[in-house]
Amino acid sequence: MAKSAKNQDDTRIIRIFDTTLRDGEQAPGNSMNIEEKLRVARQLQKLNVDVIEAGFPIASEGDFEAVKKVAQTIKGPQIAGLCRSNDKDIDRAWEALKYAGDKGRIHTFIATSDIHMKYKLKMEPGRVLETAIKAVKRAASYTPNVEFSCEDAARTRLPFLAEMVEAVIAAGATTVNIPDTVGYTVPFEYFNMIKYLKDNVPNIEKAVISVHCHNDLGLSVANSIAAVQAGAGQVECTINGIGERAGNCSLEEFVMILRTRHDILPYATNIATDQLTPASRLLTSITGISVQPNKAIVGANAFAHESGIHQHGMLMDKSTYEIMTPESVGLQASSLVLGKHSGRHAFKKRLEELGHDLDDDMLNRAFERFKALADLKKEVFDEDLEAIVTDESREEDRYKLEHITVTSGSFAVATATVQLEISGKPAKTAELGDGPVDAAFKAIRKLTKTKAVLTQYNVGSITGGTDAQGEVTVRVEEGGYTVVGKGSSTDIIVASAKAFIHALNRLHHKQKRLSDAV
Amino acid sequence: MAKSAKNQDDTRIIRIFDTTLRDGEQAPGNSMNIEEKLRVARQLQKLNVDVIEAGFPIASEGDFEAVKKVAQTIKGPQIAGLCRSNDKDIDRAWEALKYAGDKGRIHTFIATSDIHMKYKLKMEPGRVLETAIKAVKRAASYTPNVEFSCEDAARTRLPFLAEMVEAVIAAGATTVNIPDTVGYTVPFEYFNMIKYLKDNVPNIEKAVISVHCHNDLGLSVANSIAAVQAGAGQVECTINGIGERAGNCSLEEFVMILRTRHDILPYATNIATDQLTPASRLLTSITGISVQPNKAIVGANAFAHESGIHQHGMLMDKSTYEIMTPESVGLQASSLVLGKHSGRHAFKKRLEELGHDLDDDMLNRAFERFKALADLKKEVFDEDLEAIVTDESREEDRYKLEHITVTSGSFAVATATVQLEISGKPAKTAELGDGPVDAAFKAIRKLTKTKAVLTQYNVGSITGGTDAQGEVTVRVEEGGYTVVGKGSSTDIIVASAKAFIHALNRLHHKQKRLSDAV
Repeated sequence: MAKSAKNQDDTRIIRIFDTTLRDGEQAPGNSMNIEEKLRVARQLQKLNVDVIEAGFPIASEGDFEAVKKVAQTIKGPQIAGLCRSNDKDIDRAWEALKYAGDKGRIHTFIATSDIHMKYKLKMEPGRVLETAIKAVKRAASYTPNVEFSCEDAARTRLPFLAEMVEAVIAAGATTVNIPDTVGYTVPFEYFNMIKYLKDNVPNIEKAVISVHCHNDLGLSVANSIAAVQAGAGQVECTINGIGERAGNCSLEEFVMILRTRHDILPYATNIATDQLTPASRLLTSITGISVQPNKAIVGANAFAHESGIHQHGMLMDKSTYEIMTPESVGLQASSLVLGKHSGRHAFKKRLEELGHDLDDDMLNRAFERFKALADLKKEVFDEDLEAIVTDESREEDRYKLEHITVTSGSFAVATATVQLEISGKPAKTAELGDGPVDAAFKAIRKLTKTKAVLTQYNVGSITGGTDAQGEVTVRVEEGGYTVVGKGSSTDIIVASAKAFIHALNRLHHKQKRLSDAV
Repeated sequence: MAKSAKNQDDTRIIRIFDTTLRDGEQAPGNSMNIEEKLRVARQLQKLNVDVIEAGFPIASEGDFEAVKKVAQTIKGPQIAGLCRSNDKDIDRAWEALKYAGDKGRIHTFIATSDIHMKYKLKMEPGRVLETAIKAVKRAASYTPNVEFSCEDAARTRLPFLAEMVEAVIAAGATTVNIPDTVGYTVPFEYFNMIKYLKDNVPNIEKAVISVHCHNDLGLSVANSIAAVQAGAGQVECTINGIGERAGNCSLEEFVMILRTRHDILPYATNIATDQLTPASRLLTSITGISVQPNKAIVGANAFAHESGIHQHGMLMDKSTYEIMTPESVGLQASSLVLGKHSGRHAFKKRLEELGHDLDDDMLNRAFERFKALADLKKEVFDEDLEAIVTDESREEDRYKLEHITVTSGSFAVATATVQLEISGKPAKTAELGDGPVDAAFKAIRKLTKTKAVLTQYNVGSITGGTDAQGEVTVRVEEGGYTVVGKGSSTDIIVASAKAFIHALNRLHHKQKRLSDAV
C-alpha cells in the first residue's frame, strides 16, 4: 500500500495559520487577557507557525490592544487580525497590525452561502460581491498581505464561490480562505470543492488557498487533509482544537499526520513538533480547560498502553503499537527542577526556559510564592512554576483574599470565616454552608455583593502526590458574560476561594472592557 | 454540491458494533465492575446498537462474569466476546456467551501485519493463516455468528490480507474485521484497502466487512466513513470515543455524520440518536472521566454559540450556524425532577426511567441518601440521582468511612480526624497535612496501611450552583494496576475521603480478581 517517500523536491510546504487567539479564544471559558495572549503567542513563535491570528481588533478595546501587543512583540510569524468587510473594521485592524510591518496581515471576510446572505446579511449576492471587492481593495491599500474569507463557504453554491474567489484575487487578496464555518462537510465533498476552485478560477494560482474547518461532526482534521490533497496551501487550526462549538482543526493532529504519513502524503509543515505538548499544556494551564485523556497526540493516554497484549507487544518491539514516539511531540516525564535551596537566579532562568519573561516586580512576587511552596512541597515541578506564574501575571485586582479559615466534616456544619480587601478596604464575615466550599463562596458573595452565578467548578492537581498543589477552576456567569477563574494552593479550600475571587475580578475587568467596545 | 437524498431503498444500513465495554474499558482509568458494565449495556440497548462487545472472557474472572451477565440480561443486541485464536480462549468465550443463545457472537483475532507476525507472534505467515482457520472452525462449531479480526490489518500486505480474509470466510466467519489497530491509516488509503478486498476476495459477499479504527492521528471517524463508502457494513466504535491510547471511533460522531449528511452519504444506522447524550453522560458518571468541552456532539460547548456574530446569526435563523438540533442528540437542560417531598414511588420510577433497576436493599439505601440530599439541596437533578446510584451500586467494601472532621485555612495548619471501619472493625486517627485533603488522605493511609500512589485528583460539580454536590475522582496506582475511585458529597473534603476509600476498595477487588485470572 505505502508508496515510497517522495523526494524532498516533491514535498509541498503547507502553511500553518494558528487561530487559537481568535477563533479559539471565542469559545466559552477560553477568554484570555493580554498577558495570557502574549504567553500563548510566544509559544506559537517557538512552534514556528507561519501566521498567528491574534484577535478581532474592532470587537473590543482588549482585543485591539492584544493584537497590537502581539504585533509589536512577536518576531518571526506573520500576525493577522480579523475584520468584517467594512472600512471601519479594516482601518481599525490595520491600526493594530501596522506594528508588525510587512508581517502584518489583514484578514477580512463576508458570508457567501445563500442561507447566510439571506438571513444574516439580508443582502443580494451581487451586493455581497461588491462589498467584498471594496473591502479587499481597502485592505490592499494598507498592505499587500491580505487574506479574504468566504464565510460558510462549504455551504456556498460553487459557481458563486468561484466568482467570488476570482474577484477578490483580482482585487488584491493573496490568500483566499474557504472555511467550513459550521463543520458540515465531509472529506470527499471538500476535496471536490477545492478541486473545483483550482479548475474553475482562472487566476487561482495568484493566491494561496486556505482552509478553516470546524469539528461539529468530528471531521475537521480529515477535511483539512483532503483539502491539502486537492491543492490548499494553508491550514487554519488551533492548539488542542479549541474554538467555537466543537472547535477547529487541531494543530497537533494535522501536523503529526503529515509527519507520520509522509510516505503517502507528500506535504510538510515548518512546525517544531517537540513544542506540541508544551503548547497544549501551556494553553490548558492558562484557560483551566483540559483535553480529554483520549485526545489524540496530547491526551494523557495518547501514549499509554494498557492491555496485557499491547504491553507484551511493546516490550517485543515498540513499532508493534507505536506509530510515533512520545519524544517527537515533546512529551517527557515531569522532571524535578527546583527545590527549597534553589536561588533566585536558577528560578529566573528556569522560568525563561519555560517561556516566561517576567518584569522585576512580578518576578519578586513569584519568587516569594515559590519559596513558600518549596517549604510545603519537597519537589517543585515545571507545572508548579506554571501555576505560580499564572497567579502572578494578572491584571490589577479589585478584590483580594486576605484570610480564610474553615471547619467541616461528616457531622460538623461547615463554617467559613473570610477576610477580603475590596478596592483597598478590609471587610470580613463568617457564613455556614453545605460543605466548606459553599460556606467560603457564600462569605465571598456576601462581601462582594456579586450576582454572578457559578456554572462550573473543577479541581485538578497540578502535579502528582498528595502534597500536590490543587488548582481550582471555576466558571462564573453574569449578564451573558462567562469568565473562568483559577486559583492554586496546597489547600483546596484556599484555592477555591482564590479561584472565585479571580473570576469576580475578571468579570469586573471584562464588563469594563466590553463597555469600552465599539 | 449536495445531491438530493436517496430513496429509502438505496440506503444501506450500517451495523453498529459497540466496544465501550471491551476496547473502551481497556483504557487507563476506564475499568468498570460488573454492575457498572451492566448499566452501560442497558444504555447500549436503549441506543439500539446492533452488537455489544461485552469483554474479553479469558482475561480475568471479572471479565468472564461481566460477559456472562450481559449475555444473560440484555435482550435485543447481539453480545460479542473477544478471544485470541486458540482453543482455550474460544471455549472460555463461548462459556460466557452461550447465555445469549443465537445472539451470542464469538470474536476471535490474530495479527496479520509483518511487524506483528515477526516481533509479537514470532510466526511465519503460513502458520498464522492455519491458526486463524483452525480458530474460526472451532468458533463456528459453537455458533454460526463468528467474527474474525486481522489485527493490525491497516499495516498488512494487501495480498496476504486478501488471502486471510478469503480463508476465514471459507472456514465460517460471517463478519470479517479489518482494524486499524494503531491508528495509522488515512481515509483515501483505507478506502482503497477495503475496495481491494471487495475486488479481490472471491467469497467476500458471504461476510460483512467490519472496520475498527483507532484515533492516534485524529482520523478514526473519517476512516470509518471512508470504509463504509468502499463497502464496509459494520463499524466498531465506543461511546465518547474511549479506548486504547487516543481511543476508538466515536459512536456519536459516526452516527450523526450519517444522519446529518444523508444527502450525500446514502447510509443509515439503527441508533436512537436521542439516547446519545444520556449515553455519554452515563459513561462519564461511571468512569469519572469527562469529555473535553469541545468534543463533537456531546461536549459542553458543542451547541454553544459564543461570538456576537454567531449569536446574531442564530437569532435571525438557527440554520445559519446549527447543522443539527440539540434535541436530536438528546440534549436538554437539567430538569428539576424531585424535591424533599417526593416519595419512594416517584424516586423508584425516575430511577427506572434513567435506566437503573436497583434491588430492594440498594433502593432503600439510595432512597435514604436521596432524602438526606434533598434536605441539603433545594433541587435534586437527574445528575444527582446518578451520583447517588453510583455510590450505591458498589461491590462489598473492605473499608468504610465512618466519620471525618477537618479544620484548615490560609493561616491554620490543616488537621483531619478520620474514623474508618476496616473489615468490620473501627479504627481512628488524626493527621496534619498541607491542606485538608492531604491531611484526610494521610489519616486514611495510616489507617489502611496502603502503599498506593495517588496519580490524579479531580473534582467536578455534578450540577450547577454553589450548593452542588461535588464529585471527586481519584486515580490510584499500585503494582502496575490503576483504579479510579469516586465519591460525592456537598462537602468536598468528605467527597475526597470517600473517593480515596472507594479507590482503595477497588484496588483490593482488582488485585483479588487479577489473582484469579487465567
